Amino acid sequence: MVQAEMTAVGGEIKRRDAPEKVTGRARYAGDVALPGMLHARLVLSPYASARITSIDTAAARALPGVVAVYTAEDLALKGAESGSRRLNFLARDRVVFNGQPVAVVLGETEAQATDGAAAVRAEYEPGPAVTDPIRGMAEDAPRVRDLPAAGAEEADLHAAVVKDEDEEQEDLPANVSNSVSFKRGDVEAGFREADAIVEGSYRVNYVHQGYLETQTCAVAPDFATGGVTVYTSTQAYFYTRDEVAAALGLAPAQVKVVPVPIGGGFGAKYVLLDPFVAALAVQTGRPVRLAYTRGEDFLAANPSPLTVFELKVGAKRDGTLTALQARVIFDTGAYAGSALGIGCLLVGGYYRFPNLEIKGYEVMTNKPGVGAYRAPGAPQASFAIESAMDDLAERLGIDPLDFRIQNAIVEGDLWPDGNPWPTIGLKECLERLRAHPLWQGRHNVGPHEGVGVGAGGWPGGKGPAAAVCRMDPGGTLTISTGVADLTGQSTSFAVIAAEAFGIDPAKVRVVMSDTDSAPHSPGSGGSQITYTVGKAVLEAASEAKRQVLAIAADRLEAAPDDLEIADGEIRVKGAPDSKVTLAEVARLSTSRYEPIYARGASAQKVIAPGFAAHLARVRVDPDTGEIAVLDYVAAQDVGRALNPPAVEGQILGGVVQGIGFALYEQLIHDEEGQLLTGSFMDYAMPKADQAPAIETILVEVPTPDGPFGARIVGEPPIIPGAATIANAVKAATATRIPEVPLTPERVRAALQG
Amino acid sequence: MVQAEMTAVGGEIKRRDAPEKVTGRARYAGDVALPGMLHARLVLSPYASARITSIDTAAARALPGVVAVYTAEDLALKGAESGSRRLNFLARDRVVFNGQPVAVVLGETEAQATDGAAAVRAEYEPGPAVTDPIRGMAEDAPRVRDLPAAGAEEADLHAAVVKDEDEEQEDLPANVSNSVSFKRGDVEAGFREADAIVEGSYRVNYVHQGYLETQTCAVAPDFATGGVTVYTSTQAYFYTRDEVAAALGLAPAQVKVVPVPIGGGFGAKYVLLDPFVAALAVQTGRPVRLAYTRGEDFLAANPSPLTVFELKVGAKRDGTLTALQARVIFDTGAYAGSALGIGCLLVGGYYRFPNLEIKGYEVMTNKPGVGAYRAPGAPQASFAIESAMDDLAERLGIDPLDFRIQNAIVEGDLWPDGNPWPTIGLKECLERLRAHPLWQGRHNVGPHEGVGVGAGGWPGGKGPAAAVCRMDPGGTLTISTGVADLTGQSTSFAVIAAEAFGIDPAKVRVVMSDTDSAPHSPGSGGSQITYTVGKAVLEAASEAKRQVLAIAADRLEAAPDDLEIADGEIRVKGAPDSKVTLAEVARLSTSRYEPIYARGASAQKVIAPGFAAHLARVRVDPDTGEIAVLDYVAAQDVGRALNPPAVEGQILGGVVQGIGFALYEQLIHDEEGQLLTGSFMDYAMPKADQAPAIETILVEVPTPDGPFGARIVGEPPIIPGAATIANAVKAATATRIPEVPLTPERVRAALQG
Repeated sequence: MVQAEMTAVGGEIKRRDAPEKVTGRARYAGDVALPGMLHARLVLSPYASARITSIDTAAARALPGVVAVYTAEDLALKGAESGSRRLNFLARDRVVFNGQPVAVVLGETEAQATDGAAAVRAEYEPGPAVTDPIRGMAEDAPRVRDLPAAGAEEADLHAAVVKDEDEEQEDLPANVSNSVSFKRGDVEAGFREADAIVEGSYRVNYVHQGYLETQTCAVAPDFATGGVTVYTSTQAYFYTRDEVAAALGLAPAQVKVVPVPIGGGFGAKYVLLDPFVAALAVQTGRPVRLAYTRGEDFLAANPSPLTVFELKVGAKRDGTLTALQARVIFDTGAYAGSALGIGCLLVGGYYRFPNLEIKGYEVMTNKPGVGAYRAPGAPQASFAIESAMDDLAERLGIDPLDFRIQNAIVEGDLWPDGNPWPTIGLKECLERLRAHPLWQGRHNVGPHEGVGVGAGGWPGGKGPAAAVCRMDPGGTLTISTGVADLTGQSTSFAVIAAEAFGIDPAKVRVVMSDTDSAPHSPGSGGSQITYTVGKAVLEAASEAKRQVLAIAADRLEAAPDDLEIADGEIRVKGAPDSKVTLAEVARLSTSRYEPIYARGASAQKVIAPGFAAHLARVRVDPDTGEIAVLDYVAAQDVGRALNPPAVEGQILGGVVQGIGFALYEQLIHDEEGQLLTGSFMDYAMPKADQAPAIETILVEVPTPDGPFGARIVGEPPIIPGAATIANAVKAATATRIPEVPLTPERVRAALQG
Repeated sequence: MVQAEMTAVGGEIKRRDAPEKVTGRARYAGDVALPGMLHARLVLSPYASARITSIDTAAARALPGVVAVYTAEDLALKGAESGSRRLNFLARDRVVFNGQPVAVVLGETEAQATDGAAAVRAEYEPGPAVTDPIRGMAEDAPRVRDLPAAGAEEADLHAAVVKDEDEEQEDLPANVSNSVSFKRGDVEAGFREADAIVEGSYRVNYVHQGYLETQTCAVAPDFATGGVTVYTSTQAYFYTRDEVAAALGLAPAQVKVVPVPIGGGFGAKYVLLDPFVAALAVQTGRPVRLAYTRGEDFLAANPSPLTVFELKVGAKRDGTLTALQARVIFDTGAYAGSALGIGCLLVGGYYRFPNLEIKGYEVMTNKPGVGAYRAPGAPQASFAIESAMDDLAERLGIDPLDFRIQNAIVEGDLWPDGNPWPTIGLKECLERLRAHPLWQGRHNVGPHEGVGVGAGGWPGGKGPAAAVCRMDPGGTLTISTGVADLTGQSTSFAVIAAEAFGIDPAKVRVVMSDTDSAPHSPGSGGSQITYTVGKAVLEAASEAKRQVLAIAADRLEAAPDDLEIADGEIRVKGAPDSKVTLAEVARLSTSRYEPIYARGASAQKVIAPGFAAHLARVRVDPDTGEIAVLDYVAAQDVGRALNPPAVEGQILGGVVQGIGFALYEQLIHDEEGQLLTGSFMDYAMPKADQAPAIETILVEVPTPDGPFGARIVGEPPIIPGAATIANAVKAATATRIPEVPLTPERVRAALQG
């Protein structure tokens, strides 16, 4: 697979989608304007928990330009009885979170729809709200919502693993919507063996994914097929197609999802509005667009859950870990379906624990349901285990990096569920940090400064994929896939195809096709696209090369094996004058031979996990509690950097998001469930001038099945941030702060005891 | 290839595109409405030949809603210096036909653009016009246009053959834009051997293709790629892409042609407006739509040429043909590029002439340039040779069907250019007619009635093609191609895929993809789609079946060869309980195995010609000259009828169009080149109540390489009509009328001597 000399892989290719995005020329779902299109505006609940006593829509209906006003009674989606949020987009009878939509107004213009929404009169009878998951687990807690059936309502799209079902079932409180448990060995015996034990409770708050483009969807009825055409800000075209089809009672083939650029997803764009907007389009027989305002997106999207990891970790004097006990709580908001399972697996998955017991509980509260956010559950798990590991190393008097390297998992070590890890580069990343000057000089820092380390990884998906490589006039190539390009995948595909075929990446175009004809692709989540679709692209380009060589061999009267492709020509090896251009083969392929149109596919058998380890130097102002991040180093095993600047860009972005987790971001709901941070004035995200200089270290431990050894890249960089900065703060202040974000108030309070 | 038992082929499948078309729900290019779209309206020349002295656009520009007014000076298309009509859509300096566009007005609404066009003041200095091609060949004829270079400007897309270039070049008159000649043996010697000789000059007039949807194109600039997106009424997506790209100086990949339904093409929709409209969109930076009015379409589209075939045919007493001499003139209007070559080949191609000499001349006149019309050149050639054959049989006292059967070409006989015919069914069609009761009873008809016979065939194209077969959720299939569906090709593809895969055609969806990702397809002309793309579909479905069986074999622990597909299941032969459903394989293919996504391709080496022979019984009113067609029988070799009702529909439509050629249709230009028949009030097409009952006879002489033996179908049914009816009129009246349409005036004049 890996070739001796590579010409495209490892070069520096500019991101294909960048010019249209930075010049403002990209046209997103919110720019879709269809003839006769209606604009939808929502009426939101001001209460987090209430009975709806009445909704009066008469005044709204009477306004000019208002075409329709619907409440839950007017719209029926198939499967609504499951209680699924997306199939019950409008509240029926009661509201379960502040900001829950209760009615929708369709107007000829957005302004008319907005006026209509303001004229809808909804009356409520408020009740008690549950806002804290620990409180929600109490027997006397108010019941958040009647769960129609046990178990998760929506698949955890990011988890490549499943929960262990062998455990005996606990009797669970009413608000617990899901639970998992993993056990290995004998934790009691493990703790008896331990020379040091650390216990702690680590809390990460609700965080919004902070995408620039709000949740947006436009749907047009298709009278020819009886179906719909969907333009939506989604990470997963085929998944969206299937979900909309199921919700409307259509065959998947009747739903066509047309790719539009996505203005940021980070896990949050996996079908929230689409079935609802599609139902509006079918109901009215007109195209309908719903674009969340920023306020609606804070109130009523699907942020990252609040989590509590209660850990007990033990080790022997020589640094050998002996046991892990964990109780994990995921606040899932008002709808089941969080990343609880993967969070529990990861907290016990990074280091070798001979004995472990992990129990996880997903708890419903009166807050919006949660979604995925880049490595969902992993920053939370990393924050917990990396805080505890640091404290345990200190207790044992061992260098925290030596301690991690000693216990870090390697290929063949087991997950909490007993599955083995494939080749991974956690240890290699930690070793690169141990040798780094920032770590070596960590004791020579200024006053109130400290250097911390943190680590974490992500398993990654392995969904089957297919791709097409077509030759176009002039001898250029077009790669077609069904991928939603979030992070420059198109650019990576061009590199992969160019390398496999033997052509300049500039001669490779990449198009994303609609679901009517695209090759199947998994969603752009779980960091899997390069590993899965990229492999399919490699196979497609290789097959296209075979097809080209077959034509050239016929023309040149040579064996295909005796031919080589270089500089836009196919030459007989050793006879450079015997040649034909790619452009000529392209012409022949549509006039005398079969068209060059090659299919490639992949069905990866093993995952290609990505691990990252970070260093940070921080300064803590002891008076204000403010934290300044002064230096940052991010080492990551990427298997093989296909396009190093793009990989570095992923790492830089993830690090800054990790700093957001660590220092700034939290969605705060008061005791009645009111959102207090509903705008970018209240919700603090790191901006460019709050990002430190970040040094990236690309570690390349190739994965056997990835294209040219590439493994997953997108999710790992966000994982270690919270732990790294909290550990740096501990180094600076000798104070463990077990809750992020490390806001000045929280730091000051902790420093003051 | 041909299977023992077929379940899908030969059944009766309703046309997939019919419901949306008959219910008015189809959305054509003229229905495309894009945000910010401008409407284009043309200013047409009132003269057929004139110098443009001035165009004053100031008044138009001052009107409300008029965004721009352009003349030829404002728009430059690459390659315009070639003189190509499509690259010089607006006249520069002089006009060469009545209706030629001289300016375009772009308005916010179509009404505003129309008002603007009315306000443009163009001044002309009229000159003499050439309207008859015979006159145009005279040395003293006015010169229609300066030809930039000798030879055809636009490819003859329908011709599967090329002209013989070996002949010495004649010195040609200035208005002759192209010439061909074919020679075999010694015609003088041939005529000396002959016992009977017939000479005649056979004329067919300008005919409009009569599509319901006028020429229409909408183009949007694509700021992301710097290219354009094209929605157009075209028969050929890839050809349109390449032509627009060349005209704008773009790479083909920068032009995306999006399929929209086409409201009739019949050969006329091979890029007329597209480069021009694309240039308008680029120039304005806004989407632009141009939809011809019906009047514009009569004046300024590309109808079928006026032709004159001067023939001399000889035969021996025993019916053996001895020689053919032909002088063929095609009136190509003001632009080179007619079906002259194929017309000359066909006139000498249907019967075995040991000696022949054919000379063809394409002559320019001051009329709109011509285009293809269903078997371009063939109805004209058939009208000539079949009239002459009938008269020669009469002269020899031989039954005209016996005479044809005796001399009809069979496999291995030669075209005028020396190429051999492959398997064909001309003789089989003629034999079916000879046995038909209408022919057998032809002498027992009423007063003024007669029964005539005519024949003809079409070589057909063989462009390379590719296709995709994808499996979708539930185990259904999607076929993707880049075909413009004019005649129900989607339905045929469903039949082919169903038969090859082993599934109900109802479970096969067919989608036409845009040129960004579609598999390459030739244009939907030359009747080739079923033969070429259909073969690719067959290969794709067969490959999909192999992919499905591989997954099933793995699940069932069986060899793929031991499996069969039936009733939506894959079963182990002889062990019916060991099975897996297609739906389950579909699920597995996107979760554990490779997605089912199969490519098929074809590159046909030989053509698959289609022949037809018709009988008609007519009654001629000797006083008025009116002709009533009383009975009609159409026999056609279709190789294999994949979907018999669809094949019959093609034949019925073609027969009625042939009746239009024979009896009603002609575009009449006066001596100054003014069109006298510019609306459906003046231009007579046969309507349903003028169509006789038509009996179809499907002859099946399979072609070795067609899907399940299918050969070309679309073009042959239009070919014999004019000859058949003229021969029936001869039988009824003993009068040979050598010019169609056989209008009452023309018939009355002929009968009256």
